[in-house]
Amino acid sequence: MPNNNDPKKRPTNRYLKSIEPAPHTVKQRIHEVIFGADTFYGALFDILLFVAIIASILVVSLETVPEIKSNSQVKSWLYWSSWAFTIFFTIEYLLRLYCVRKPSKYARSFWGIIDLLAFLPDYFVPFLGGHASFSVIRALRLLRVFRIFKLGWFQQEAEDLGGAVYRSRAKITVFITVVLVLVTVAGTLMYEIESFAGAENTQFDSIPEGIYWAIVTMTTVGYGDIVPVTLAGKILSAILILIGYSLIIVPTGFVSAEFLAQKTNATSTRSCASCITEGHDADSVYCKYCGDKFD
Amino acid sequence: MPNNNDPKKRPTNRYLKSIEPAPHTVKQRIHEVIFGADTFYGALFDILLFVAIIASILVVSLETVPEIKSNSQVKSWLYWSSWAFTIFFTIEYLLRLYCVRKPSKYARSFWGIIDLLAFLPDYFVPFLGGHASFSVIRALRLLRVFRIFKLGWFQQEAEDLGGAVYRSRAKITVFITVVLVLVTVAGTLMYEIESFAGAENTQFDSIPEGIYWAIVTMTTVGYGDIVPVTLAGKILSAILILIGYSLIIVPTGFVSAEFLAQKTNATSTRSCASCITEGHDADSVYCKYCGDKFD
Amino acid sequence: MPNNNDPKKRPTNRYLKSIEPAPHTVKQRIHEVIFGADTFYGALFDILLFVAIIASILVVSLETVPEIKSNSQVKSWLYWSSWAFTIFFTIEYLLRLYCVRKPSKYARSFWGIIDLLAFLPDYFVPFLGGHASFSVIRALRLLRVFRIFKLGWFQQEAEDLGGAVYRSRAKITVFITVVLVLVTVAGTLMYEIESFAGAENTQFDSIPEGIYWAIVTMTTVGYGDIVPVTLAGKILSAILILIGYSLIIVPTGFVSAEFLAQKTNATSTRSCASCITEGHDADSVYCKYCGDKFD
Amino acid sequence: MPNNNDPKKRPTNRYLKSIEPAPHTVKQRIHEVIFGADTFYGALFDILLFVAIIASILVVSLETVPEIKSNSQVKSWLYWSSWAFTIFFTIEYLLRLYCVRKPSKYARSFWGIIDLLAFLPDYFVPFLGGHASFSVIRALRLLRVFRIFKLGWFQQEAEDLGGAVYRSRAKITVFITVVLVLVTVAGTLMYEIESFAGAENTQFDSIPEGIYWAIVTMTTVGYGDIVPVTLAGKILSAILILIGYSLIIVPTGFVSAEFLAQKTNATSTRSCASCITEGHDADSVYCKYCGDKFD
Repeated sequence: MPNNNDPKKRPTNRYLKSIEPAPHTVKQRIHEVIFGADTFYGALFDILLFVAIIASILVVSLETVPEIKSNSQVKSWLYWSSWAFTIFFTIEYLLRLYCVRKPSKYARSFWGIIDLLAFLPDYFVPFLGGHASFSVIRALRLLRVFRIFKLGWFQQEAEDLGGAVYRSRAKITVFITVVLVLVTVAGTLMYEIESFAGAENTQFDSIPEGIYWAIVTMTTVGYGDIVPVTLAGKILSAILILIGYSLIIVPTGFVSAEFLAQKTNATSTRSCASCITEGHDADSVYCKYCGDKFD
Repeated sequence: MPNNNDPKKRPTNRYLKSIEPAPHTVKQRIHEVIFGADTFYGALFDILLFVAIIASILVVSLETVPEIKSNSQVKSWLYWSSWAFTIFFTIEYLLRLYCVRKPSKYARSFWGIIDLLAFLPDYFVPFLGGHASFSVIRALRLLRVFRIFKLGWFQQEAEDLGGAVYRSRAKITVFITVVLVLVTVAGTLMYEIESFAGAENTQFDSIPEGIYWAIVTMTTVGYGDIVPVTLAGKILSAILILIGYSLIIVPTGFVSAEFLAQKTNATSTRSCASCITEGHDADSVYCKYCGDKFD
Repeated sequence: MPNNNDPKKRPTNRYLKSIEPAPHTVKQRIHEVIFGADTFYGALFDILLFVAIIASILVVSLETVPEIKSNSQVKSWLYWSSWAFTIFFTIEYLLRLYCVRKPSKYARSFWGIIDLLAFLPDYFVPFLGGHASFSVIRALRLLRVFRIFKLGWFQQEAEDLGGAVYRSRAKITVFITVVLVLVTVAGTLMYEIESFAGAENTQFDSIPEGIYWAIVTMTTVGYGDIVPVTLAGKILSAILILIGYSLIIVPTGFVSAEFLAQKTNATSTRSCASCITEGHDADSVYCKYCGDKFD
Repeated sequence: MPNNNDPKKRPTNRYLKSIEPAPHTVKQRIHEVIFGADTFYGALFDILLFVAIIASILVVSLETVPEIKSNSQVKSWLYWSSWAFTIFFTIEYLLRLYCVRKPSKYARSFWGIIDLLAFLPDYFVPFLGGHASFSVIRALRLLRVFRIFKLGWFQQEAEDLGGAVYRSRAKITVFITVVLVLVTVAGTLMYEIESFAGAENTQFDSIPEGIYWAIVTMTTVGYGDIVPVTLAGKILSAILILIGYSLIIVPTGFVSAEFLAQKTNATSTRSCASCITEGHDADSVYCKYCGDKFD
């Protein structure tokens, strides 16, 4: 985007088309680069940030690999890279606070907190012996990847999917509740049957283990770490699997129907005042049946 | 809800809006609290009951965990908690019997039996040595969670899903039958191939084991406790998996289409005044059966 | 159904309603009982046959269980039960041949061959040392269960599902072909990566094993009998899983759309000769737009 | 197809129906056989090529099976078969280059490169010690199978499915991104919980292993090679599985709805003669944009 303050970059005809005033101060320019994605430097920054997030996740991940832990050279390289990313994200956060119109509102917003938590724990890890239990907060940094959706055409798709999940929340809740009751009953039954019939070599040590088995089974994950060893357990297990298999058909179809109904209804509730017909498209100007003009 | 009998709580304008008479006797008040969910105490009781059911399930589950079994302090705490829940559910059941209009009808209803079975076995467990095989009935207590659906907006969703499962019962039965025939044939074939080709180290000990393997495989659970070890077994296994994978596409789509068709038909309740037929499209000008013009 | 030939059973008013003549000969009566399901004895025979098939499958299955093999009493009981079923199915087959109008046509039909193969191999098993490799043909007996669909209301559902699978055959073929090409490429890649990087402890012994792994993985069965042990293998494995996971969304939606389109189109191709409008229901007598009578 | 240049095969009435001139030169005839599938020899060649590709894949695959590696007779037979296929594909490639109108364009096209890579690496394998890491390029040969779709009725289905995948690319990308963020967070959390609580016997050695576990789990593959051993790990694992299970319902339904919406829109190609707009319903009487009556 052309910049009037810079004498080297003269206003072009692209500027004439744009009515909105160009940024004049350094603060506005930083805001444009960090928060915007329409200008060249804004898009570049977003891509750079995306790469930095991915790279910092890779560094954090690789630091835990046993082969790398024992290699002191790679380990120290990862250690300093990790610190470089922490400092980069700190500067980025401070610049965001500086250039945004209402810093306190940003700081308390969802993304503001995520941005802060993306680097803050790193400063405390060395003082606490770098214990693993603290670095778990680092994982939240990954949610930053969602910001990339602001770039371009993914926005609408992300909103569509998010809206779909939101509208289906009641159905998903009911479905999950039914599944939870089913897995509790199933897990308890399996524990009783397995511990009664094959007490010596059962893998069902307790009811919570039974429920864990039922969840792993009815969602068709099927690790195989806990499996029935008795005939009765295998028969019950087979029945539960078939019930789970049948159940998953129904909600899938149900949600599909809901989606389509919403899509169809979005255009079909408009009615004609002259001939009382319904089902007119939202962009109709005239009634398709009687030819009367809509208001 | 205001109560006219109580002099401290005077009738408010909220009462004036409600035409239905307020409860007058203690029996009616108990009924309102236990069976209703519209009043403050009714909703509170339902939430309390929900928490009690969840907590009692947790207690029963945790009692079976080996680490807790060996800890006498936690064990005795769980033991007395378990008895507290049993007594609470007993009192609740007796109050339900007392306040309901037709106690014998409630006692023989589905939820009445579930409510009874939720605490009755607990009294017999000590006399029978507390054997695990009896406490399996305790799991039925969990079905009580379904009662929570009566609270608020989940009702419709639960009924929709339930109705969907009910309407699809014929399709699900046919699908399950086809799957059962397939797994029987597949399980038998796998047993024969594996026991013929790799008799020494096969994991397919019998035809029932083969059928169990086929169910676990074709539903994509795939524990891995029984897997083919011969080349022929692996090839047959791969073919069966691909058949199962393709089959699951068809019923899902079929049920989706059914749901949507039912949803669309729900709008065609327009009826003709001349011939009393129903199912006319919203854009119809003339009755499709008798040719009479619609108003 | 009343029978005129039998003096004890007089024609009732039910007979008067039926125009079709009642069976007169023994042959016709046997045909009615064995092939029909409308009369009391016909339905009874079908249910009896269904139970006999299930029981015979259970007997054949249980004969292979190691615990039963070592119990001589149960084993001999199962042995004689198995022979009883074989003789029952033989008599049933001969009766079918006797009472059917064109015995040679039935004998060469699909169900005729299945009926024959349901008992024929049993007579040869003793002469061949009862080797397992022959009893595999017994499994075909299970397909007999499909006949039960002729009973009542499952017929339509079974035909609908069958027709749906048939109409989707082209899409399923393309989908399976794409999956097959994908698993071959994926299996070969995994074999190369695993045998190159982790030659000593890889579980990918050959390319066919790799393809078997790819099929088990991409269909989300995931036994876990063959898993990548190297980092490169795990990364490639994760990518392949995500590709397979995404791919399964598309065909499911596609088939759903196809089903619904067929359901909708089934009623919408009828056009009115007077006003050239389309989308009339199959049962329309008059045009819903202009009111003209259809031919 | 009749050939005028061949005196033995006289022009038949089939030629008279065809307006397009028959091939006259050897080059044109080779082109017709290799690239075409409409003539008898063209179809025969395509089927032959399909069989050759499948057979060559089988040969390459079987060469890696340990049992065959140790059998010198079968090994040498496979070795020479492999070379025969290499030479056949080389000749085929050279003929394609010879008969095509623009050889350089074909050589640089996608299928041209695939055709070249299908045999080229085989000539270099002996010089490089036949190392496995080179033969991985052989797998690309399998993509040649896609050419078979040009034969007949699969073309449209393949294009439909391909187009569906292409149109859903945005949704699939968003979905995959959400899944990737989820598995990264989930994998890191599981690594921290498992290594903190059960440091001695955990199977989660590093964060990448945790992410690999999360992908294998949330896609319901569930190998079982890495499973949680601690109570906290099992609880988190169960929650993650249920989230993944619920998430898969939404995109499936969403894509189904999209497919159907596109299918429905495909019928609204009716255009208005006055204002040249498209997308009018089949039952429209008047243009919904300009109000002009349709013919």
